[in-house]
Amino acid sequence: MDRLISGEPRALARAISIVEDRLPAAREIVRTVYPRAGRAPIIGVTGPPGAGKSTLVDSLAVAYRKQDKRVGIIAVDPSSAFSGGAVLGDRIRMQRHSTDDGVFIRSMATRGHFGGLASATVDVADLMDASGCEVVVIETVGVGQDEVDVVRVADVVLVVLVPGLGDDIQTIKAGIMEIPDIFVLNKADREGIDRLHGDLKTMLSLFDAPGRPEPRILRTVATSGEGITELHAAVAEFLAGAQGAVLEARRRERSRERLLDLLRERVLEWAAGPVSGGAFERMVEDLTRRTMDPYSAADLLLERFDPETRAS
Amino acid sequence: MDRLISGEPRALARAISIVEDRLPAAREIVRTVYPRAGRAPIIGVTGPPGAGKSTLVDSLAVAYRKQDKRVGIIAVDPSSAFSGGAVLGDRIRMQRHSTDDGVFIRSMATRGHFGGLASATVDVADLMDASGCEVVVIETVGVGQDEVDVVRVADVVLVVLVPGLGDDIQTIKAGIMEIPDIFVLNKADREGIDRLHGDLKTMLSLFDAPGRPEPRILRTVATSGEGITELHAAVAEFLAGAQGAVLEARRRERSRERLLDLLRERVLEWAAGPVSGGAFERMVEDLTRRTMDPYSAADLLLERFDPETRAS
Repeated sequence: MDRLISGEPRALARAISIVEDRLPAAREIVRTVYPRAGRAPIIGVTGPPGAGKSTLVDSLAVAYRKQDKRVGIIAVDPSSAFSGGAVLGDRIRMQRHSTDDGVFIRSMATRGHFGGLASATVDVADLMDASGCEVVVIETVGVGQDEVDVVRVADVVLVVLVPGLGDDIQTIKAGIMEIPDIFVLNKADREGIDRLHGDLKTMLSLFDAPGRPEPRILRTVATSGEGITELHAAVAEFLAGAQGAVLEARRRERSRERLLDLLRERVLEWAAGPVSGGAFERMVEDLTRRTMDPYSAADLLLERFDPETRAS
Repeated sequence: MDRLISGEPRALARAISIVEDRLPAAREIVRTVYPRAGRAPIIGVTGPPGAGKSTLVDSLAVAYRKQDKRVGIIAVDPSSAFSGGAVLGDRIRMQRHSTDDGVFIRSMATRGHFGGLASATVDVADLMDASGCEVVVIETVGVGQDEVDVVRVADVVLVVLVPGLGDDIQTIKAGIMEIPDIFVLNKADREGIDRLHGDLKTMLSLFDAPGRPEPRILRTVATSGEGITELHAAVAEFLAGAQGAVLEARRRERSRERLLDLLRERVLEWAAGPVSGGAFERMVEDLTRRTMDPYSAADLLLERFDPETRAS
C-alpha cells in the first residue's frame, strides 16, 4: 500500500489485478485507498470503433504531460472476450509512452463474476488517483450499453464522431445525445466534416436536455495533433466552470452505482453459497423442471433473507 | 393470455412489451407462461458484425417454415442505444416475412433498469414458446460480453465466421472457442475460405474442451441458400443426438441465471425503495463525501437485510 500511494507503477498494477480478480485482499485495498481518492477528474471518452479514440486519448495525455500532470488511462473493451486485443493493445500503447512513467495505461476487458464493469472501472480509477494520477481517462473501444454505462458517470464526457463511418448522424438516438459534454469531430481533415457538423447541430437543437448546457462541438485531427490544445482547454474549462452541481450529481451517481453493485454481488454470493442451505440449488432444479416459476422462487428465497418479508 | 397462448401475434407482441418494461402485469404473465414453455429448442447465433448472421438466420427460418414449424427470432443488439438500428431493422425484416405469420421477429436493445439482458431474452423466448413457436432463434448483432452471455445458454450455439473480415483467427480467444457447437463459415464463396477453415481446425485442436464433442464446421453462402439444408440438418442432429446431458446442463444454467437476475433485481429495488428507511441514500452520501468506503456501506446495509448477519 505504501508503494502504491508513493506512485510506484508496479505496486499500482498489482493492486489493480487484486481488485479486478476480487481476491480477499481487495477489500483492504479499497478501504485504504477510498478516502485518499476522489481528487483526479475522470474524463470519459466514447464513440464508434474507428473514430480514432485511442490516438485522441494519447494526444490528450501528451497535453497533460506538458503540464507535468500524471495521467492514468483505462481502456474498456468488453468485446475483447472475442477479439483478445486488449492486452496486446496495452503493450503497444505502453511502448509509445515507454520513456515516460507519468502515463499509466490499463485495459479492462472482463467483468467480475457478479460485479459490473462500471464499478470495476471506477475502482481502478480510484487506485490510479490514490497512486498520484492527477487525471484519469476512461476510454471505450465501442459504444455498447456496457461502455456507455461506464463513461456516463465520468466528470466530463467526450463523444468522438468522424465523417463517413456509416454511422449516419440521423441514426444516432436520443440516448447518446444526452451523454456528452463535448462532441469531438475527429479526422476533421476528411471530406464530409462540414455536413457532419451541420447535422450534429440540427440534431442537438432537437434534443434539448433541460438544466444542462448544450454540449460544445470541437474539431480535431488526432494523428497530427490539430485541435488538441483547444480540446484540452475545453475539458479544463468544463471542469473548472460553473458545473459544480453537475459534477456533484455525477459523483453521487458513481457512488450509487458502486454501492448497488456491491450489494448485488454480496446477495448473489449469499444465494449461491452455503448460507442459503442449498435452497438456491433446489429452486434452480424446480425452475429447470418448470414446477415453479422464477418469481415464486425468488419470493421464497428472499423470505429467508429479508427480515421485513419474514415478519409478515 | 388466451390470445397469447392461441398464437395471436399481436397478443404476443404486447406481452413481450409488458415483460420487457417490467410492468406490474409482467409477473402474472410469466407465472402463467412458465409451465407452458420449455418445449421449443433455442438456437443461439453469434459472430462478428458483417458475418451475415441475419441473412443466415432468415434462411434457417425459411428451412423451418418448409417443415411447417413456427419460428420466433430474437435479435439482440445492446449497442443500439447508440445506433438506434434495432427497431428499423425489425420492420425491414418483418417485411421480408410479411406474407407469413409463421415467423415472429423481435429485437431486444435494452436491458431493464436492474435486470440482465440474458434473462430478458430468455423471458421473451418463453413467451414465444408458449404462443406456439416451435423453434426460437436468438441472434446477436455483435460479439460483446453481453451478447456472448445471451447465446451461451442456448440449446445449440452457432458461431458465424467469414473470410477476410480482419478478425484473424489467431486473435480469437479461448473464451469464444468454448461456446459453439457448430461453426458456420459463411460467405464460403469468398477468397480465403480454405485458409479460414484450416486455421480454425488448427485452433480447435489446441482448445480441447473436456467432456464436450468437438464442434462441427459447416460452410454456407447465406445469400444464395447454399449449405442451409446441411446446417438445418446439423442443428436437428445436435439437438436430437446424444447430447442429453449437455442440453440439461444448459437449461439448468438458464434457470440459474434467471433466478440470480430476479434476486438481484429484488434486492436492488429493496435497497433503493422506502423499506430500507432511507439508509441507502445516506450511504450514497457518505460514499460521495468519502467518509465511508463502499465495503463498509454494503455491510451496514446488509445487516438490515440478512438475518444471519443480524444474529451475530
